[in-house]
Amino acid sequence: MNARTHRGIREAIRARIVAGEWQLGELIPGEVEFAEEYACSRTTVNRALQALAEEGMVERKRKGGTRVRPLPLPQAQLRIPLLREQVEDAGGAYRCEVVDRRIARAPDAIAERLDTGEAKAAYLETLHLADERPFAFETRWINLAAVPQFAEADLGELSANEWLVRTVPFTRGEVALSAATAEGRIADLLGTEEGAALFTMDRTTWLDDHPVTTMRLHYPPGYRLEFAI
Amino acid sequence: MNARTHRGIREAIRARIVAGEWQLGELIPGEVEFAEEYACSRTTVNRALQALAEEGMVERKRKGGTRVRPLPLPQAQLRIPLLREQVEDAGGAYRCEVVDRRIARAPDAIAERLDTGEAKAAYLETLHLADERPFAFETRWINLAAVPQFAEADLGELSANEWLVRTVPFTRGEVALSAATAEGRIADLLGTEEGAALFTMDRTTWLDDHPVTTMRLHYPPGYRLEFAI
Repeated sequence: MNARTHRGIREAIRARIVAGEWQLGELIPGEVEFAEEYACSRTTVNRALQALAEEGMVERKRKGGTRVRPLPLPQAQLRIPLLREQVEDAGGAYRCEVVDRRIARAPDAIAERLDTGEAKAAYLETLHLADERPFAFETRWINLAAVPQFAEADLGELSANEWLVRTVPFTRGEVALSAATAEGRIADLLGTEEGAALFTMDRTTWLDDHPVTTMRLHYPPGYRLEFAI
Repeated sequence: MNARTHRGIREAIRARIVAGEWQLGELIPGEVEFAEEYACSRTTVNRALQALAEEGMVERKRKGGTRVRPLPLPQAQLRIPLLREQVEDAGGAYRCEVVDRRIARAPDAIAERLDTGEAKAAYLETLHLADERPFAFETRWINLAAVPQFAEADLGELSANEWLVRTVPFTRGEVALSAATAEGRIADLLGTEEGAALFTMDRTTWLDDHPVTTMRLHYPPGYRLEFAI
């Protein structure tokens, strides 16, 4: 292909883009520079760039020059479901069991995260079941300054999360996903072996500036959190 | 509190909502039914429900009755970043190394996912490094019917993912997050011990109806994928 035809120039520039000469989103040379480099007219370069723009390789702005098409950000709308919904959507019967519940000083890292200082907080362990098999194990601390009524709450059939969702408006949260090794007690409760790899979700929620609750979910081996992008 | 005042009725209904008598989003009884149950006027019930609506416990629609406020869906805009960006955003120097690359028949599960049938596919192993320390290990299969030019591609400094992003428009993908146990080869490459719990991301992408690539990333112990909701 002749490097001076608009097709030839299009292919030459395409090859340079694919080879990584410029970062995604980076400005590439202008018509004048390419015309000089390929010893052709600006019109020819313009036609080549226009063709690359039409096939989505580059983006052209009237005054902004031409950029390598930035990464088409694969973004996911990741909805954090209620465990009850997750289980019921998969056709299972949901139930939860409170394994431990007490009022205590939180460990330092938790006290800092919940901003409870020297004050006691509510601690709750819940085993979530799908068709009576362990679905997830939850440990949760609740800031009693933010939700004093939790201390006396009768959760009944509700999980602590469902109770909180009904009681405290949600403003914002932080989530961290990671992997953890199953240790004695958690391995037992999830019915798995010590040392198994567990998918783990940490979540802290705030009401305005006040931390309300921080929790960790451990899922049994084999759990997958799936979503579309 | 007198159960026949609007305040008393408001508190009574609130307690029933918090106790889980109705599902989130579920229709609760109408004014007529509550008025009968609490032996008061519809106006009084109306005032009570209005107050609950104002504080966000319920939602009222002119003709649709009153529902328990549905779950304020905690939704995350989870962006799937390029590994290069993840590393550079954290202030590290990014580099990647191709550990293995060949053309071969994919294992059955992969061949089915990529719809490659009996045809060979490209296989690639890449170690992603941050400041020369293992950041993630990637195994990837590429459908050569969808991206024939990959067979001969000179990746240079680019990761396969970056090359693909530049070459093939992205239409949709599926992601699954899970935890896996580090096995011999992967443990070695990530510089961790066998049996460690590794955060794992599987991703398959399509161009229109054609599967392009499917990959798995293993992150070393301690990695956390964090986002806000």
